[in-house]
Amino acid sequence: MSEQAARRRARSGGGAARRAMRSARGVETAPVITRRIPDLEILDEEALEIIEANAETVLEEIGVAFVDNPGALARWREAGADVRGERVHIPRGLARKLCATAPSSFTQHARNPARSVEIGGRNLVLAPVYGPPFVRDLAGGRRYATLEDFRNFVKLGQMSRWLHHSGGTLCEPTDVPVSKRHLDMLLAHMTLSDKPFMGSVTEPDRARDSVAMAEILFGREFVAENPVMVSLININSPLTFDSTMMGALEVYAAAGQGCIISPFIVGGAMAPVSVAGTLTQVLAEVLAGVAYSQLVRPGAPVIFGAFVTSIDMNSGAPTFGTPEAAQITYGAGQLARRLGLPYRSAGAFTGSKLPDAQAGYESANSLNAGLLAGVNFMLHACGWLEGGLVASYEKFVMDADQLGVLHRLAAGVAVDEAAQAMDAIREVGPGGHYLGCAHTQAHFKEAFWRSELLDYKPFETWAEEGARDTQALAAARVAKLLAEYERPAIDPGIEEALKDFVARRKAELPDAFA
Amino acid sequence: MSEQAARRRARSGGGAARRAMRSARGVETAPVITRRIPDLEILDEEALEIIEANAETVLEEIGVAFVDNPGALARWREAGADVRGERVHIPRGLARKLCATAPSSFTQHARNPARSVEIGGRNLVLAPVYGPPFVRDLAGGRRYATLEDFRNFVKLGQMSRWLHHSGGTLCEPTDVPVSKRHLDMLLAHMTLSDKPFMGSVTEPDRARDSVAMAEILFGREFVAENPVMVSLININSPLTFDSTMMGALEVYAAAGQGCIISPFIVGGAMAPVSVAGTLTQVLAEVLAGVAYSQLVRPGAPVIFGAFVTSIDMNSGAPTFGTPEAAQITYGAGQLARRLGLPYRSAGAFTGSKLPDAQAGYESANSLNAGLLAGVNFMLHACGWLEGGLVASYEKFVMDADQLGVLHRLAAGVAVDEAAQAMDAIREVGPGGHYLGCAHTQAHFKEAFWRSELLDYKPFETWAEEGARDTQALAAARVAKLLAEYERPAIDPGIEEALKDFVARRKAELPDAFA
Repeated sequence: MSEQAARRRARSGGGAARRAMRSARGVETAPVITRRIPDLEILDEEALEIIEANAETVLEEIGVAFVDNPGALARWREAGADVRGERVHIPRGLARKLCATAPSSFTQHARNPARSVEIGGRNLVLAPVYGPPFVRDLAGGRRYATLEDFRNFVKLGQMSRWLHHSGGTLCEPTDVPVSKRHLDMLLAHMTLSDKPFMGSVTEPDRARDSVAMAEILFGREFVAENPVMVSLININSPLTFDSTMMGALEVYAAAGQGCIISPFIVGGAMAPVSVAGTLTQVLAEVLAGVAYSQLVRPGAPVIFGAFVTSIDMNSGAPTFGTPEAAQITYGAGQLARRLGLPYRSAGAFTGSKLPDAQAGYESANSLNAGLLAGVNFMLHACGWLEGGLVASYEKFVMDADQLGVLHRLAAGVAVDEAAQAMDAIREVGPGGHYLGCAHTQAHFKEAFWRSELLDYKPFETWAEEGARDTQALAAARVAKLLAEYERPAIDPGIEEALKDFVARRKAELPDAFA
Repeated sequence: MSEQAARRRARSGGGAARRAMRSARGVETAPVITRRIPDLEILDEEALEIIEANAETVLEEIGVAFVDNPGALARWREAGADVRGERVHIPRGLARKLCATAPSSFTQHARNPARSVEIGGRNLVLAPVYGPPFVRDLAGGRRYATLEDFRNFVKLGQMSRWLHHSGGTLCEPTDVPVSKRHLDMLLAHMTLSDKPFMGSVTEPDRARDSVAMAEILFGREFVAENPVMVSLININSPLTFDSTMMGALEVYAAAGQGCIISPFIVGGAMAPVSVAGTLTQVLAEVLAGVAYSQLVRPGAPVIFGAFVTSIDMNSGAPTFGTPEAAQITYGAGQLARRLGLPYRSAGAFTGSKLPDAQAGYESANSLNAGLLAGVNFMLHACGWLEGGLVASYEKFVMDADQLGVLHRLAAGVAVDEAAQAMDAIREVGPGGHYLGCAHTQAHFKEAFWRSELLDYKPFETWAEEGARDTQALAAARVAKLLAEYERPAIDPGIEEALKDFVARRKAELPDAFA
């Protein structure tokens, strides 16, 4: 039955889209950002060439470690690398040559075709926070995340106009055994949202479960031919590729599913305390990881990832929204474009414990850098708090609102006759007022981006209404969105098959909480 | 005696600098930002040419109004404009031609020569909030500003490492008659700070008092030959130049003192509801204003100003940190560079009533845009709250701390051998740790920018210390800075002469509170 439903689904593009549109009343998601403004390029040609040459030196001379993974070592040996123990020395130019089969852009399909996203080129796809074990909200404070929290964040993502993607591990549902929670997370993404989502990477078997569930949702043939997931493969920086992450990569690449191949770097700890040195290591690691994905399956869709922050040398804590992180975000974007790969970086990063001014400054610094650095896929675009330890309900809707700023800024400046507004300037003249003029009447509705959250009221009104700060306004918006949430329609046969799969796998798997 | 002291001051450059350095223990001010990164140019050549051609059409066809100012009309008539009543129609190309005598860059001198600032080129000079009638702090809430508040903000500015300029009307000292408060404000800037400052513009006579006090501080000859003030001349948009502001401009330009010539625009009210239309009006207004300054005195140092925000079409309130404001900031920067003029725009703008997350997002959006738009002089770089109605103590130190981010980002990326860090990557190798390596030991101290305010502590420590948000941390920093503040040394004769001047003028002037 699940096969039957899946086949029906795979053939039913138009109908599914129409059903999704009908079901999605009250939730209008913006198309992915297509930049009509230039990228900021902070490295000159000479600097880029130095970094690229040094990365090749790192790969050849120092090499990278593929740990507990004889299959990977065999692939590398066959490709012409010099493998000594678990250390893979990659001759100059080989990794870059292997990367050439990776597509420069690809479509990740959503079950609602209107919400499929093209990742690459001038596009920017926005996805929510990934990975926190804790959640925080104004009423309940900081606490371990549960499956109910996870489902709430899927719902908030579905309700967010400027968010294109449902993400992956929005928070860790710590009330479900670690061996089973990937099933509940996938089921939530697949049934509570119709936006694209990410697969599990914490064990190769969980990646296989992800593919199996995607096949139920999209149909086996469709999944065989189209990316329907993008999953996060972290590199164990410096220069180490562990067998868990590589195992997941192998599953996804072989299945033609998308992967972000991403060094995870706290600068000063996992990379040198310099921007150029860190960029060198990032490039070497991504070259090796992407090359490996292409050894598994040439043409597998991958994304050049860079999660980079720096360490506070006084406390040892990672810091966010800093200028060095921005410089690395800009520089890695240039390196990714020269490689012809889609680029993942940035996010609404902050080290703050609360959704306060620090969170606002740091997140805006990072979001702006991400837009101008040419990022194509931005994970953690909303909800991130406390260095990624916490998914914040209030910050989720605050950040998600600010993502509207990026959309508008990226659209560039129109200079058609209406935008030139010469008739308005003539009509109003020196000392006049534009509020009532014909041009304003015709265009004011779409003229300016408007926050759906922030306070624009006169002081007196604001004071009468309780002098609420952004966190309090956001808490009210969270409650409103969750109350207004409606599940997007899904084929009952497919939903049943997904639930059956989850139940069967849960019965098979042992309980494990670590 | 004041003349004698002033002459002594004018000759004593080196000695004054040495005295200032000695006196300034604990307060190290960063040099002005010199950008080593490119500007973001969001308008292409075609768009720029359309806007420039339209601005010329506005000047010729619609014209600009110089109100209650027969002298200005005579100057324009003599320069070749077509003057009808108070409306000045400027033939195509004339305003741009007149602008050519304005310098592309100039030095504003501080009484401590080490703190003089070069305004123009690749530089960015940061100055604090200007104009609020209210102040707010955590303990006292929102209230009318007093002279004591004003003096406190001068002290905070003097203590701010990343702030190059003492500013002007940091807040309105509403406890002093409006007819006299310029004297107290100037005296505070001149005696409590040794950074450069701004003159009064609210009446031409107050501009004259500003020049007279500057002559006491710097010496008459020095002031005659060097800009020692930069003052804010707002244009009454759309297209209107009132006699008060033009009167102040005339005083300063004739005295060879710097002026920012700045449209003050809430888009949708004082300019069309489109970015291209607003840029057209901004350019027309600045062209007319700068041209007029050069009619008063060719070579007078001026700055292309653009204070532009947009209106919330629901509430009628001005909004800040919006994408349209950023687009105008970027576009006006391109227009200013094509005119060869220094550029003033951006600031730590927010509409929020509190120094909360909204304030953080909006301010960071605007600060980042200002840096990347090529702004040379940024007024309101710290302390702005509630759409400019409030100078916030806490936000002053929050923003001032974030200005460090701009310094570091602007410095660009080093790629020398130390920065390449190849020895570190070799030393650490796959799976290692950089914290202890030789490169990290040699460079960690200056490797990363570090906030002096934000929370980087582990959760548990932060919770034990009271779980303070950014506002609470900032309140503590305000108290610390004010407690540690020390007056920079000043020649007692000069200080006496300044106080005598203020006392004499206060005795002459009537009390007036509006």
